[in-house]
Amino acid sequence: MKAEAASATTAGSLMADEIAAQPAVFRTLLAAGPEIRALAGDITRRRPRFVLFAARGSSDHAALYGKYLVETLLGLPAGLVSPSTTTLYGARQDLRDVLLVTVSQSGGSPDLVEVAATARDQGALTVAVTNTEGSDLVSVTDAALSVRAGAERAVAATKTYTATLLALYLLVDALRGGHGERAEPLGDLADEALAGAAAPVVDLASRLRFADRLLTVGRGYSSATAGEAALKLAETSYLLTRAYSAADLLHGPVAAVDADTALLAVTSVGPGGTSTLETLEAVRERGPFVAAIGSASASAAPDVGVALPATPEEVAPVLEVLPAQLLALELARARGVDPDRPRGLNKVTRTR
Amino acid sequence: MKAEAASATTAGSLMADEIAAQPAVFRTLLAAGPEIRALAGDITRRRPRFVLFAARGSSDHAALYGKYLVETLLGLPAGLVSPSTTTLYGARQDLRDVLLVTVSQSGGSPDLVEVAATARDQGALTVAVTNTEGSDLVSVTDAALSVRAGAERAVAATKTYTATLLALYLLVDALRGGHGERAEPLGDLADEALAGAAAPVVDLASRLRFADRLLTVGRGYSSATAGEAALKLAETSYLLTRAYSAADLLHGPVAAVDADTALLAVTSVGPGGTSTLETLEAVRERGPFVAAIGSASASAAPDVGVALPATPEEVAPVLEVLPAQLLALELARARGVDPDRPRGLNKVTRTR
Repeated sequence: MKAEAASATTAGSLMADEIAAQPAVFRTLLAAGPEIRALAGDITRRRPRFVLFAARGSSDHAALYGKYLVETLLGLPAGLVSPSTTTLYGARQDLRDVLLVTVSQSGGSPDLVEVAATARDQGALTVAVTNTEGSDLVSVTDAALSVRAGAERAVAATKTYTATLLALYLLVDALRGGHGERAEPLGDLADEALAGAAAPVVDLASRLRFADRLLTVGRGYSSATAGEAALKLAETSYLLTRAYSAADLLHGPVAAVDADTALLAVTSVGPGGTSTLETLEAVRERGPFVAAIGSASASAAPDVGVALPATPEEVAPVLEVLPAQLLALELARARGVDPDRPRGLNKVTRTR
Repeated sequence: MKAEAASATTAGSLMADEIAAQPAVFRTLLAAGPEIRALAGDITRRRPRFVLFAARGSSDHAALYGKYLVETLLGLPAGLVSPSTTTLYGARQDLRDVLLVTVSQSGGSPDLVEVAATARDQGALTVAVTNTEGSDLVSVTDAALSVRAGAERAVAATKTYTATLLALYLLVDALRGGHGERAEPLGDLADEALAGAAAPVVDLASRLRFADRLLTVGRGYSSATAGEAALKLAETSYLLTRAYSAADLLHGPVAAVDADTALLAVTSVGPGGTSTLETLEAVRERGPFVAAIGSASASAAPDVGVALPATPEEVAPVLEVLPAQLLALELARARGVDPDRPRGLNKVTRTR
């Protein structure tokens, strides 16, 4: 009890606890395979031909991961919804044969509820992926998939983000007839990842303490991780960061990379990670500080590397973001900011 | 002749000339209505049910504008392609009933050529929107729409960007049976916009000279403008900027907004502009410097405003970006950088 009381007064203790809870969250979700396969069966019977995702904030990065999964593993075209076309412009689309997946940890943002309700009216099969079973979102969709992360108290989403990634993976894998075999070890691998990342992340945070220019870079599946890492750093450490695809970085923004710039590269073993390594090679002569996270991070010859256990690239984002979460926590602490109380943020953001 | 020789040695003279050429470019393209309507007729006969866009760099922002047009004016679901699922992971999607629009001023990026060729093999109707009629991209697509901007010599895309926006608008408007009536005045309005923006942009550039934190914000159609403005500033002035939807800004990144932050808000008269004004209101107490561009900019009570002629919001992005291009030019000059020679950039970026 004494230890608990002490930890409650430490900056970022809520966020730290929820980061540490992720291996257990993964194991809980992995045990839900039969339910997820039943949902996949219901979806398959409707034979969707096009998949749309609707999301905001961290969930938008999870949706991007979902889009890569659908395009690559299911062979269906996919897109991310722009909620404003529905909520501001009142547009109505012909959504027959469309599966709309709405991703929201809270299930409470009015724009997403309106998008889902409208899409159902327009003929879409609608599924809510959420951590909040009794939410407004669930009440307007045909089906719901709970990510089972438990209550999240820190403002910065951590365990709900990775649980959402894993839920989307298990759903897409079930839609192609799989049983989640490639995800099965993620609980143990997450334990290993968190333990291995602790020391290099503290080193990295100390070296980024005075940074004011940071870009995150990834490609393919890891694009989602780059986006989420940038958001975590912005909302907890107030760093003005932005994420680039390793390809898009070379189309213009590379001009802004110099010796005053830090790059945080997400490089897992696989085609996406290899592409990011090629981009790093192309920008290295510009003199940036290079940090790398992932199972291929050593190949980047980084200033600071955070290694991760190797996995198939399609599940790597579930692990890749763990060191980025720890970095957001440690960098906030190094800068004297309490990441559990970021200025100006509430847990549920209501936009329309 | 003497004046020409002098201007060739001025920093950014190529970019300045191409910015100034845009009203004439719009008039040329507006005269191509019959050809664009013929292309629209060919597309309508194929009855596409889903629309995908593939693009990189500035063209990716034009594609985002196209996505809003398709969702709102055509009532079809739409998405932006992730080229890596095709080029890195070798994925093949069932693209029957899909219209794939590839947007590339050069028509030369190998990844986009591969995406278009693969999509055609997979059953998509493929259209290239490009400034380069004999490009590799055109050779692999079913049809092409030339944006007729003439040769672009500056590295930073300006006239090809706006010509692409206008070409996409005219195509989508023709697909709904229109004759481009709302776009017709854009040549004259662009003259007016450029003349009116000159003085406030020089003022704004002087006030942003020492800025190192700048966010661009827009919503709805103007999201594309916010994205393109951020890219122009990054590639010419080396500012680390990023664009947010006025809704997404409130989901986390708002924590990074403070008195050291400049916001460049794109606010045209209409629902998107109104939403951005609401977001500005919500963040004003955080103390940022606020610049606003657009026909509703005065309503933002900005530190510096750049007014534009009022138009229907669906065509506003064609004008909104003009002051942002001028700002990128003037800010580069104020910082002693030649925007015609940004470090590390070539006119055609080849990614795979």
